[in-house]
Amino acid sequence: MSNFKEQLKQARISVDQNLQKWLPLPDNLSARVVEAMRYATIGGGKAFRAFLILTTAKMFDLPEANAINIATAMEMIHAYSLIHDDLPSMDNDTMRRGKPTVHIQFDEATAILAGDALLTNAFEVLADETTHPDPMIRTKLIKMLAYLAGKDGMVGGQMIDLIGEKQTLNLEQIEMLQGKKTGALLMFASTASAVATKAPEEQLNALKTYAKCIGLMFQITDDILDVVGDSATVGKTLGKDKDETKSTFVSVLGLEAARQKAEELGVQADDALSIFGEKAITLKEAAHFILERNY
Amino acid sequence: MSNFKEQLKQARISVDQNLQKWLPLPDNLSARVVEAMRYATIGGGKAFRAFLILTTAKMFDLPEANAINIATAMEMIHAYSLIHDDLPSMDNDTMRRGKPTVHIQFDEATAILAGDALLTNAFEVLADETTHPDPMIRTKLIKMLAYLAGKDGMVGGQMIDLIGEKQTLNLEQIEMLQGKKTGALLMFASTASAVATKAPEEQLNALKTYAKCIGLMFQITDDILDVVGDSATVGKTLGKDKDETKSTFVSVLGLEAARQKAEELGVQADDALSIFGEKAITLKEAAHFILERNY
Repeated sequence: MSNFKEQLKQARISVDQNLQKWLPLPDNLSARVVEAMRYATIGGGKAFRAFLILTTAKMFDLPEANAINIATAMEMIHAYSLIHDDLPSMDNDTMRRGKPTVHIQFDEATAILAGDALLTNAFEVLADETTHPDPMIRTKLIKMLAYLAGKDGMVGGQMIDLIGEKQTLNLEQIEMLQGKKTGALLMFASTASAVATKAPEEQLNALKTYAKCIGLMFQITDDILDVVGDSATVGKTLGKDKDETKSTFVSVLGLEAARQKAEELGVQADDALSIFGEKAITLKEAAHFILERNY
Repeated sequence: MSNFKEQLKQARISVDQNLQKWLPLPDNLSARVVEAMRYATIGGGKAFRAFLILTTAKMFDLPEANAINIATAMEMIHAYSLIHDDLPSMDNDTMRRGKPTVHIQFDEATAILAGDALLTNAFEVLADETTHPDPMIRTKLIKMLAYLAGKDGMVGGQMIDLIGEKQTLNLEQIEMLQGKKTGALLMFASTASAVATKAPEEQLNALKTYAKCIGLMFQITDDILDVVGDSATVGKTLGKDKDETKSTFVSVLGLEAARQKAEELGVQADDALSIFGEKAITLKEAAHFILERNY
């Protein structure tokens, strides 16, 4: 198994263990919302964002115990965004990660609340002493995540995504949409360990370039998979973009040019990592995985 | 005008000014979600929680500039909770604060996103250097708010509230529901300034007792208003609890016993504040206002 696949698997295991600690079932009537939070996070998905945090933590000597908390907060935010994105008034998806979405498995109100709580409690995890001994680092991470996940980042991107269902977007608008919707959290995941260890500006910038490239690659391959993927392998409903005549990288560029753009971004991502030498080999593998993924 | 009414009015003005700063309209397609965030916060509601923070800030000599940021974050969280609570799959309310709810004025998806962004960006405000020079204080406030607003606090309470629409709750369960749903944010609002100034344990505990009392009073008077209030004065749909045969303080205790319980809590709130002497006169007025409110 490659370093990448091994570390991806390990990230899932580490985050799941930590989620058990942060999301214990309470012994009162509010247990239902915690059940939904656990359903949406534990064992769910590839934990790619957690992998990025844990792998860069090794590069910058951030202690694993700190990195696991940051990765857990990250996966809580990612899971909340999927729960809300899947709601009937949003993307109206019934399957996610190969199982029924939260509002199907529970109900719509519980899904909204579970998303709200995952978002809220992610900041509880980041603010905790066990995430980093220096409170200045903790507030820095919190501010960065709140900025990247909020109106100027992910939520702003989701707003543009909804608008894009009703009006045609040009390439620049699709890139902005993606930069916010998918790119913002990948930016946090790629740079959090460097920020937490006060890495030199040059190294931080290299990771920012890497994050931008893999964010775009991720969305392009997602758009490609929506057209050519196999629903059972991908684990969610496909062909939706076309049904909804949504503007995507594929609809604007065409399939071949979209594939080529993804390839070019892969080269750029590699180049950006060159300053880290051998240390960045797993991050490079991750970029290649995105390029070649079929799920 | 009493101190209380004057300071309540001033809190609204101060927070509105600060919201203008934190929620500028962006010059791109994501502007729609920021419009909804502004619609739900600026000029909306009594700003009672902001008042509590600003008034206790004076008692503990917390600089006003710091307190206004904390109050702004608080009102953002409060507004998010109302937006999501009003959604069709939750309380399905069409009027709030005398105007159409966010999902009526905009649409359901925008309402979900506006709530998500207000919740997220509230933590951006708290993490900002202008909220307090000491990052340890900032993380303490963030951790407290995330705990009180999340699964163990407000969201947990909303879950119990939903369950209470389908099964009868006893007095103890209603008190727990309220303690989480309404009480948790009032706890933050009552104690944040004391926490930010490292006030002595005894004073912090006095404020915690005060918060518990006004939280319960708030919910009891809310339940009473739902039965006897005037819809135009209150600014939202009334009589809903009875329509939905929901367990409330009034349905369990009866109207008179509920009123008496609220009176007793008013006395307890007064007693708790006695250690502050004259300094707490405005907080006492606030408790009396809750008791006598008709909106």
